[in-house]
Amino acid sequence: MKRYRKEDQISYALGMTLLFELFACREKLVRKVYLHSKLNRNEAYIELMERCGKLGVDVQINDKAFHILSQKENCFVIGEFEKYKDELRAQDPHVVLVNPSNAGNLGTIIRSCRGFGVKDIAIIKPAADHFDPKVVRASMGAVFGVRIETFESFQEYADRFGNHNFYPFLLHASSSLQDTAFLEPFSLIFGNEAAGLPEQFNEIGHSVIIRHNQEIDSLNLPIAASIALYEATKNTIRLE
Amino acid sequence: MKRYRKEDQISYALGMTLLFELFACREKLVRKVYLHSKLNRNEAYIELMERCGKLGVDVQINDKAFHILSQKENCFVIGEFEKYKDELRAQDPHVVLVNPSNAGNLGTIIRSCRGFGVKDIAIIKPAADHFDPKVVRASMGAVFGVRIETFESFQEYADRFGNHNFYPFLLHASSSLQDTAFLEPFSLIFGNEAAGLPEQFNEIGHSVIIRHNQEIDSLNLPIAASIALYEATKNTIRLE
Repeated sequence: MKRYRKEDQISYALGMTLLFELFACREKLVRKVYLHSKLNRNEAYIELMERCGKLGVDVQINDKAFHILSQKENCFVIGEFEKYKDELRAQDPHVVLVNPSNAGNLGTIIRSCRGFGVKDIAIIKPAADHFDPKVVRASMGAVFGVRIETFESFQEYADRFGNHNFYPFLLHASSSLQDTAFLEPFSLIFGNEAAGLPEQFNEIGHSVIIRHNQEIDSLNLPIAASIALYEATKNTIRLE
Repeated sequence: MKRYRKEDQISYALGMTLLFELFACREKLVRKVYLHSKLNRNEAYIELMERCGKLGVDVQINDKAFHILSQKENCFVIGEFEKYKDELRAQDPHVVLVNPSNAGNLGTIIRSCRGFGVKDIAIIKPAADHFDPKVVRASMGAVFGVRIETFESFQEYADRFGNHNFYPFLLHASSSLQDTAFLEPFSLIFGNEAAGLPEQFNEIGHSVIIRHNQEIDSLNLPIAASIALYEATKNTIRLE
């Protein structure tokens, strides 16, 4: 056993909340469950054991695994899962992240996407690895309940989803967020944390700006993406 | 020289961007500037030296200071500043944070507050220390351009600002964010990351919910606060 690396075929859900999300959304991909010897034998534990039994998932008490895989002191259960590939749905709205570089930010955006019901996320490489345990944790497990597909370039994405209405978020743009009518199916497009979207995105679709005053350079990326998600879905969000 | 502690009378702005924000907003409080021997002697450096000269601020080349105060590899300048006290303005809108516990989150919220022009922030204790260098960094220096006041209890805050319209953000509430008309001066009130606001806030002012589906438990705190700031200010935001 060793620390997670991007090239691995497996990754990890650290903690009970994430592990239950993994079971709820992707139960067939759970390969193994590690328990810390200090784990409380409470109701959640009993439910977990029942699930593992029903699915035939190996359970192993292994304190060393926690030393290697988790830096958090309050993590007493780890789920090991096989990585998987999703395909985005052409008829549904998308969020497109062009070169997101920070794992925590990526996870936070995924959590907001799931909460606002935009469950198809395109990631344009180079980008942070969405299976990184840090992303899984920052998403609070929401990553298992969305569809994520990675693309080598924005062009590759655009060629596949020509039916979509593209809304790149830029600092110079055609309209303010609150004055934009989002036509479905939409693609909300965001750039990298430091660089934003390249200039040429001004020529693509309908560009949008989230207005703020000049005292800050920009909003933090997950904040901008979440405000856009809120505004684009607020009249149609299904609350079931 | 030692690591920053909450009890100290001074704190630190790590990096050139934060230091320039400190000078722009609070120049009289800068006590010392530390330079790393590897700092590029570029235009920003020249401007920094001019500023320090004009204000009579001590400049010290001291690589050890970086080892002690900064964990970031790309930080080559540190500003030491005296802590200060602000007083909130009664006629202006407020954000009220009840027991925020995470430094990064606090900084991110402060950055959004400044961007959306809500520059008076009440922090109800116990809470993360807003002078912590981690907060300063997460705010991208925005912390120097807002007014922050801490209170021992929400009651202490409410007694001082009885003229304000209180909008506590809760998971069960009187109206959706998009259906809420915010009357000025408003106070947008948010709870702790894990616990949210205590139940009794349902009895205070007009409670608001940011609707999302049931697939996530809640939005991340800085996300929720920033969406609320966007919505409450979008018709009145001054963009100068």
